[in-house]
Amino acid sequence: MKTSINIIGNGNVARHLYQAFSTVDAVLIQQVVVRNQEANVAHFGKATIIHDITTLQPATVTILAVSDTAVSLVSEQIPFENELVVHVSGSTDLSVLHPKNRQGVLYPLQSFSANKAMDYASLPFCIEAQYSNDLEIIRQLVTNISTIIFDIDSFQRKKIHLAAVFVNNFVNHLYHIAADICQENEIPFAILQPLMQETLSKTATQSPLLAQTGPAKRGDLPTIALQLAQLENPHYQQIYTSITQSIQQLYEQKL
Amino acid sequence: MKTSINIIGNGNVARHLYQAFSTVDAVLIQQVVVRNQEANVAHFGKATIIHDITTLQPATVTILAVSDTAVSLVSEQIPFENELVVHVSGSTDLSVLHPKNRQGVLYPLQSFSANKAMDYASLPFCIEAQYSNDLEIIRQLVTNISTIIFDIDSFQRKKIHLAAVFVNNFVNHLYHIAADICQENEIPFAILQPLMQETLSKTATQSPLLAQTGPAKRGDLPTIALQLAQLENPHYQQIYTSITQSIQQLYEQKL
Repeated sequence: MKTSINIIGNGNVARHLYQAFSTVDAVLIQQVVVRNQEANVAHFGKATIIHDITTLQPATVTILAVSDTAVSLVSEQIPFENELVVHVSGSTDLSVLHPKNRQGVLYPLQSFSANKAMDYASLPFCIEAQYSNDLEIIRQLVTNISTIIFDIDSFQRKKIHLAAVFVNNFVNHLYHIAADICQENEIPFAILQPLMQETLSKTATQSPLLAQTGPAKRGDLPTIALQLAQLENPHYQQIYTSITQSIQQLYEQKL
Repeated sequence: MKTSINIIGNGNVARHLYQAFSTVDAVLIQQVVVRNQEANVAHFGKATIIHDITTLQPATVTILAVSDTAVSLVSEQIPFENELVVHVSGSTDLSVLHPKNRQGVLYPLQSFSANKAMDYASLPFCIEAQYSNDLEIIRQLVTNISTIIFDIDSFQRKKIHLAAVFVNNFVNHLYHIAADICQENEIPFAILQPLMQETLSKTATQSPLLAQTGPAKRGDLPTIALQLAQLENPHYQQIYTSITQSIQQLYEQKL
């Protein structure tokens, strides 16, 4: 028997989950809820689209893939009760879902782009549920698309989301600063790509704590002063200073 | 005819350059200078090791792979004149080399580890020379091990080194903070690996400026406040604040 799911939402996560589950024989995508009647829904292929959430029918798992701030309200608008409803948010508690339905979480730990294909099999999913039976239902569902599944409670999930801000949003901004420095000096940003890849690759075999190098770790104050003086943007200076101080303090402790 | 080279130094760059050139038929590694008589030199294989720099013989290219602060002094100790001597430093001017020899630079843009094999063919080299003939000699030499060669002057090279600090040293510290958050909350750091890879992969097809996501870009002040409150380490708070402010300011400008 197929597992039936509903998807509520039209953002990147909704689209990617549709993409991933639509190729799975064991899963039936029953209804997709897109509130906006004028929205482009071409990416949902042959799915049954509804615009009025009050016409949503129960399914084994109803996936609420809406923005964090909408989880509470939209989960309340779901017209049925005592069914399994899961949200997909990293920073939202399980309990934010309206309690008229059984609460669960299915959080894909990835930064989705609208038009970029993705290998779902290597995508980590963090799952949680109010009831242990439901946790197994969510696990079974996710197993269809990925083998990397972690049981993560709401407290841990918030911490993962925080860590993700550092390695995704913040790392990307450091990439931007480097790209900006390159552009200003007519240097192709691609020249840094092997270094960026090596910095990441090292973390697979060595902790970042041990892999650290550079002027801050060496306590090389002349180089630090020279580099700070080269940064004209005061925000870049602030970032340079705060990360340098954090590294210095960390390795002084270790001496 | 073979191109002869000398290598002065026993650090990671010296070892990796030896490793790379020792497999090239067209290159003869004439002498390797290791000042410390007791140093382990097993990684230099069958090379002719000398400990006394005054016994160094001229070669087509003498590569000075010593620390930035030693470039000036050691280049002065070289016992011959009017030969091509190149340093390998990102942040050191061409002119820091003693002018009794012809000055050049061969800067491999990578973070070398002692015991990690490396694919030299995809390694970017930044080259520079006092004389255009010498630039071609350096280019010919590097062509034996890599196809990615950029003509970069001393000013640009300093900027590349600055950008490299952001994408290597600083990104690595952000990875450390994430690893630290994971460890404190009994979450495997490996859970973040696909996200880290995707963050990097996106830069190949999209500028980091366009790829930016997250609470700072959205101006999501409640999430920013909640995340700051979760960070106990004051250095991590400083980093969170400085990067968040830089992102906010950048995208306010763009509106």
